[in-house]
Amino acid sequence: MLFLARMDVHFPESLTPEQVADFQAREKEYSGNLQREGKMKGIWRVVGEYANYSIYDVENNDELQQVMAGFPMFKYMNVKITPLAEHPNHTDAVAY
Amino acid sequence: MLFLARMDVHFPESLTPEQVADFQAREKEYSGNLQREGKMKGIWRVVGEYANYSIYDVENNDELQQVMAGFPMFKYMNVKITPLAEHPNHTDAVAY
Amino acid sequence: MLFLARMDVHFPESLTPEQVADFQAREKEYSGNLQREGKMKGIWRVVGEYANYSIYDVENNDELQQVMAGFPMFKYMNVKITPLAEHPNHTDAVAY
Amino acid sequence: MLFLARMDVHFPESLTPEQVADFQAREKEYSGNLQREGKMKGIWRVVGEYANYSIYDVENNDELQQVMAGFPMFKYMNVKITPLAEHPNHTDAVAY
Amino acid sequence: MLFLARMDVHFPESLTPEQVADFQAREKEYSGNLQREGKMKGIWRVVGEYANYSIYDVENNDELQQVMAGFPMFKYMNVKITPLAEHPNHTDAVAY
Amino acid sequence: MLFLARMDVHFPESLTPEQVADFQAREKEYSGNLQREGKMKGIWRVVGEYANYSIYDVENNDELQQVMAGFPMFKYMNVKITPLAEHPNHTDAVAY
Amino acid sequence: MLFLARMDVHFPESLTPEQVADFQAREKEYSGNLQREGKMKGIWRVVGEYANYSIYDVENNDELQQVMAGFPMFKYMNVKITPLAEHPNHTDAVAY
Amino acid sequence: MLFLARMDVHFPESLTPEQVADFQAREKEYSGNLQREGKMKGIWRVVGEYANYSIYDVENNDELQQVMAGFPMFKYMNVKITPLAEHPNHTDAVAY
Amino acid sequence: MLFLARMDVHFPESLTPEQVADFQAREKEYSGNLQREGKMKGIWRVVGEYANYSIYDVENNDELQQVMAGFPMFKYMNVKITPLAEHPNHTDAVAY
Amino acid sequence: MLFLARMDVHFPESLTPEQVADFQAREKEYSGNLQREGKMKGIWRVVGEYANYSIYDVENNDELQQVMAGFPMFKYMNVKITPLAEHPNHTDAVAY
Repeated sequence: MLFLARMDVHFPESLTPEQVADFQAREKEYSGNLQREGKMKGIWRVVGEYANYSIYDVENNDELQQVMAGFPMFKYMNVKITPLAEHPNHTDAVAY
Repeated sequence: MLFLARMDVHFPESLTPEQVADFQAREKEYSGNLQREGKMKGIWRVVGEYANYSIYDVENNDELQQVMAGFPMFKYMNVKITPLAEHPNHTDAVAY
Repeated sequence: MLFLARMDVHFPESLTPEQVADFQAREKEYSGNLQREGKMKGIWRVVGEYANYSIYDVENNDELQQVMAGFPMFKYMNVKITPLAEHPNHTDAVAY
Repeated sequence: MLFLARMDVHFPESLTPEQVADFQAREKEYSGNLQREGKMKGIWRVVGEYANYSIYDVENNDELQQVMAGFPMFKYMNVKITPLAEHPNHTDAVAY
Repeated sequence: MLFLARMDVHFPESLTPEQVADFQAREKEYSGNLQREGKMKGIWRVVGEYANYSIYDVENNDELQQVMAGFPMFKYMNVKITPLAEHPNHTDAVAY
Repeated sequence: MLFLARMDVHFPESLTPEQVADFQAREKEYSGNLQREGKMKGIWRVVGEYANYSIYDVENNDELQQVMAGFPMFKYMNVKITPLAEHPNHTDAVAY
Repeated sequence: MLFLARMDVHFPESLTPEQVADFQAREKEYSGNLQREGKMKGIWRVVGEYANYSIYDVENNDELQQVMAGFPMFKYMNVKITPLAEHPNHTDAVAY
Repeated sequence: MLFLARMDVHFPESLTPEQVADFQAREKEYSGNLQREGKMKGIWRVVGEYANYSIYDVENNDELQQVMAGFPMFKYMNVKITPLAEHPNHTDAVAY
Repeated sequence: MLFLARMDVHFPESLTPEQVADFQAREKEYSGNLQREGKMKGIWRVVGEYANYSIYDVENNDELQQVMAGFPMFKYMNVKITPLAEHPNHTDAVAY
Repeated sequence: MLFLARMDVHFPESLTPEQVADFQAREKEYSGNLQREGKMKGIWRVVGEYANYSIYDVENNDELQQVMAGFPMFKYMNVKITPLAEHPNHTDAVAY
């Protein structure tokens, strides 16, 4: 079951560059794990913004909430979720 | 080069059900062709809305404009395009 | 798996009162069936507006899309879906 | 008499993790009491956001205001209230 | 129990001046009755707009919904309801 | 001459509880005086929000500006003013 | 007492060019009269839009409402009123 | 050439009352000079808000930018500029 | 003096394809003339939308208003104008 | 391939004037380099705002993202990107 997320990141001024780098390293590891587990199907930078669009494949809303809340930078993210359904024009020519 | 599109469709009341069905059939064929050509990487229904999110892989903005303007239902669609760049957390575990 | 929907209805001027009444009767039957099947957990009128909030319990996004698209008045409705997860403060004292 | 609330929580950076945990513990207790008293009919997490939708059953607006102002985290919450009325399509097949 | 309503009126072009005048006459009568019954506590024109702010004193949300749906021009009105509670700075020097 | 105001209050985190209480006490006194002078015709809490709707009866815009700027918490308030005119459906059955 | 108005005009498609021209002629005459009576202190086209900003000098809100409702094109205008007060930085070097 | 500006002022909490008073005194002097030079044609307080509408008469956009950037409180102002053109209903009965 | 415009076009359903084609042909001629006269410095399609961004070089606001109102499709366009000034980071390496 | 960017700058209060000046000097150098490399085709101040519109000519979205992220003040900028395509009314009379 697929969901599209848009995530906008806003770090407070009080964070040091080291803290930011640490958050980003942990975020990268967490994100990579989600991809290898097949729960994150793709992630793309929104050009010019500290934001991404990403697609998730989860069993249900509770799992998606766990995935979201598990992001190390979750408290600094503004997340908007869009539930996706199969489109009638979808063909097998695309990956998912 | 990837772009995310959100398309919202609004048919005028004056269209007959046959006209709507004809538009939808041509849209389906056009969309399928784009997928087989590798220009549309995915398309999903926004649950509860006559809308989709879809991802395009094109050479440049002019090609994307041609792809968009070629949709049979283009004049009835409200389209918003978001340019996507590679995300630093992207891994090879995902399809694209 | 629960979802909250807000539905706003906008009938075109061209519909006759009989057509409106027919739509409403079919909507009422469809809505009642969803409730008896356990797919619609509740529905409430937004005071002063031709709109409702309703809660759905479905297996996945595709089923929710089918439920939504099945509403007789679907083409006249503006629908916004919010995926819901279990809240940590939820207790068994409430119905669901 | 039912009301739908959407509550978005924004903690200031100055709060320590201990203060946050204390607020959350008191919030959980307060929320549980409201559920056992029958004043809160349901509460759900908005997936991906530090927010909830919840439904209240109160005698009047003044009681709802007291319920809202009593939340330990009230000063950190952005609350929007929607008054709900009985929907003509409501049946006895649903809990309330 | 008090509620504030803002009502914006939008007549379709297809209505004749006579139909508009008839709607307005029936609206005036309905509004006057609500005032005499004590259910409408006040009504004011928003300067420059075909809109009003009005205050209602009703038993509960269902009664308010009935009052709203009873307006002859209800189908042409966009209504937003705000539930009001007693303000701590309110004194007996004001009418209500 | 009547005006409707919506006031939303946002205190900065730096204020102590004592400072807040002092502001609120002075606000209450100021608000009561306006009511006794007949300049404030009513004030109501917006349920769930640190906000009010209030109605003012003043000679002109300059007096309204003085009334607004005189609120002890003025610098912490976001105020929106709507000028009100007599509504054609107004009757003498209401207080003003 | 001064008010700023922004007026946006939207003519329905059903009006003939002659009807539009007639409305515009009557509007011009009405607007000229307001200026000669000193009730309209200025009127300017918003560049690129069928809209104006204009300033009114009236005795009270009821007179402003009469002035607004008297515009021949009033039913085709979207009007937003802002009450203006004397600014502390105002000097006698300007016209009003 | 005329432009309408709306300026909203937001002082940070860190400014002392003396600093605010100093900014306001310099702003008043700067604003008075603009009026005497004929570059500011009028300035009015938006009732209830720390905001003004003001009208400027300048040679070109670059001069307007210089005028704006010269305000002592410029860094604390949110400014929106609307270019104004001569309105066909304008008469010589008004000042400008 | 430069201005940026965003123009969104909305044709009514009642126009025939021939009428649309005629409007577009006249628009193309008008736009070409503006470019040759040096009044339009550039025009670009917003990808996926029936909209453009374009840049104008005119003597003053009144000339810009004339340029805008002269577009054959002006009555079907929603135009937003942004006045541009010289940027301090501008160098002679760019065309204008 | 062209893109339009709107950039709004918001410096935190904690920056000293020296830090701001240093950021601006580095920004000016970076911006000049982009212009000399032909990647930035133009940059203009939005009158009255700490904002610019600028046009970029890049190979693809990833290059645009690198250009954006390279701005010294990137973390203080709110950037919105619009992809541009060739407009059918474009002629060779304009620079690009």
